[in-house]
Amino acid sequence: MPDALELISRDAARPPYFLAIDVGGTNLKFGIVDDNGHTLGRCSVRTEQEKGPEDACQRMNQVGRKLAIDCSVDMDDVARVGLATPGTMDVAAGMLLQPHNLPDWWNFPIRDHLESVIGKPVSFANDANAAAYGEYWVGSGAEFRSMVLFTLGTGVGGGIILDGKSVDGEHSHGSECGHMYVDSGPTARMCGCGQAGHLEAYVSAKAVVQRTREALPRNRQSTIADRLEAGEELTPLLVAQEADRDDRLALEIVMETAMYLSLGVVNMMHIIDPDAVILGGAMNFGGHATAVGRRFLERLRRDVRMRAFPALVDVTYIDFATLGGHAGYIGAAGIARSHYQS
Amino acid sequence: MPDALELISRDAARPPYFLAIDVGGTNLKFGIVDDNGHTLGRCSVRTEQEKGPEDACQRMNQVGRKLAIDCSVDMDDVARVGLATPGTMDVAAGMLLQPHNLPDWWNFPIRDHLESVIGKPVSFANDANAAAYGEYWVGSGAEFRSMVLFTLGTGVGGGIILDGKSVDGEHSHGSECGHMYVDSGPTARMCGCGQAGHLEAYVSAKAVVQRTREALPRNRQSTIADRLEAGEELTPLLVAQEADRDDRLALEIVMETAMYLSLGVVNMMHIIDPDAVILGGAMNFGGHATAVGRRFLERLRRDVRMRAFPALVDVTYIDFATLGGHAGYIGAAGIARSHYQS
Repeated sequence: MPDALELISRDAARPPYFLAIDVGGTNLKFGIVDDNGHTLGRCSVRTEQEKGPEDACQRMNQVGRKLAIDCSVDMDDVARVGLATPGTMDVAAGMLLQPHNLPDWWNFPIRDHLESVIGKPVSFANDANAAAYGEYWVGSGAEFRSMVLFTLGTGVGGGIILDGKSVDGEHSHGSECGHMYVDSGPTARMCGCGQAGHLEAYVSAKAVVQRTREALPRNRQSTIADRLEAGEELTPLLVAQEADRDDRLALEIVMETAMYLSLGVVNMMHIIDPDAVILGGAMNFGGHATAVGRRFLERLRRDVRMRAFPALVDVTYIDFATLGGHAGYIGAAGIARSHYQS
Repeated sequence: MPDALELISRDAARPPYFLAIDVGGTNLKFGIVDDNGHTLGRCSVRTEQEKGPEDACQRMNQVGRKLAIDCSVDMDDVARVGLATPGTMDVAAGMLLQPHNLPDWWNFPIRDHLESVIGKPVSFANDANAAAYGEYWVGSGAEFRSMVLFTLGTGVGGGIILDGKSVDGEHSHGSECGHMYVDSGPTARMCGCGQAGHLEAYVSAKAVVQRTREALPRNRQSTIADRLEAGEELTPLLVAQEADRDDRLALEIVMETAMYLSLGVVNMMHIIDPDAVILGGAMNFGGHATAVGRRFLERLRRDVRMRAFPALVDVTYIDFATLGGHAGYIGAAGIARSHYQS
């Protein structure tokens, strides 16, 4: 049974509709989205990746059709299906290659298989690129012509929207903004991918935890140390909470994260020069909802101002994403819609 | 009088023709280019920037028309004019803003002014982006769908071609690949733009000279030292010559340059994921024409192989540009042609 079925008012809902599925290592998120990017209903089920991709495609069909019924949408009015998955992948071929968190799904032609199971054309996209498209379509980037999204989570991903399209790259490796070098000096930090000096090694959730852990021995008076001694787990949320209570070390870690992130943001401003740079993902120290999240954003903007070409600082919008964990399925629906229209 | 008028066989030349002008701080380069990217004739005159942009536009008109006559091309068959200039600029508005090497041309509406003087529609482009378009149209990138160009000279510029178009950016600062951070560590080098750690601070001609100068006191046996003591000027060409004679320091500098450049190349592979990365500009240690140039390229490819996502290393073409100093006017003609066609 789907978890967390949410039905949203379908007043003003307008066909064609799009069924979108965002595949993660833990959950499959489903949404029925209308032509304006409005969600009629959404739900999620466990991925159960170990059952393999054929089983998952069967469940995508069952859960998707059930969701359409729950939303009072006739499947005949569902024009296309949007499917977002983590990489590695071959977007053009519709193939999963070796996604890290889906080890039992490797080298699987998921687009064509899902098409045959569900009986609808499927648009296939990288999950971070789909999230970028979602924010561009109806989220934080909706007022802009071009946009770069950083997704800050356990790792760091990205998406670039130019001329209304996601920059997927010729080999499905475009917009991997977490894996750009921002440091090649003697103190460069090791990235999860095995290279030193990538942005992800500084601003991912893992990196925030790692930097905090390294700084603790020099900052024993930090309230972070007290909470760890009480048995709590060190997380970016814990750091954010202590920063909100003005713990000096916690604040330093947050501000240092903003400084490192500014290197990546400025690189994308100098390479892509978009209208907007949007920060998605859960590793945002609370975003606009907390004082420390707002200070994080302020510090990022300040550091970008110090580092970017002066002509860009007042004309490049920098803010948090607004769609949260829904960006992926909404963007997958948006990409399906763009394929339907063309 | 134009310098260096070169007339090239016009067998198979095919209208429409495009008059293209590449503006540099020293020279204005002119070319008459046909619909296939074939140059019928080219010449150059001194920029004489101190006479101001109105005077230059008059000379562009005179020299351009004279070149058309020399090429036996009727100006009625010249469909558009392509104009490439250094930035800063506002491409959409047709404005020069504050180009460093054209101090007497600041804040000048050069596109519209040239249109009124020459009586033809003018397509306006950044010079590095035009060079990228030229290499993409008929140069080293001609077989590829997408391409990133690094221009290695006194500074480092770049151009990105995606979907057949140059990534100019929303504020005319796209594709500034020299000004991406590749180092933010304690030993990061100062860039000409005032920031530390940009790619340009490692791989420009100025950076090569600077790194050599710093290394010389530790390498007094280097033949570079002998030549400097004999009164020669330290240049990348001198370093390349001594590297070709197996001077250890000179070779180290060349290989180190390739290593630094690999950081920028890998960043662009992970952000754009193009079919091809092309190295233009004069700072190429001789390119394919010399053994050291070929070793520079080999080392770059090796370092990219070590650093890039494995899926990309065998499918991303990396090579020198082929159009040399002509890429700018050829690309300006190509951009004019793309505007004429659309």
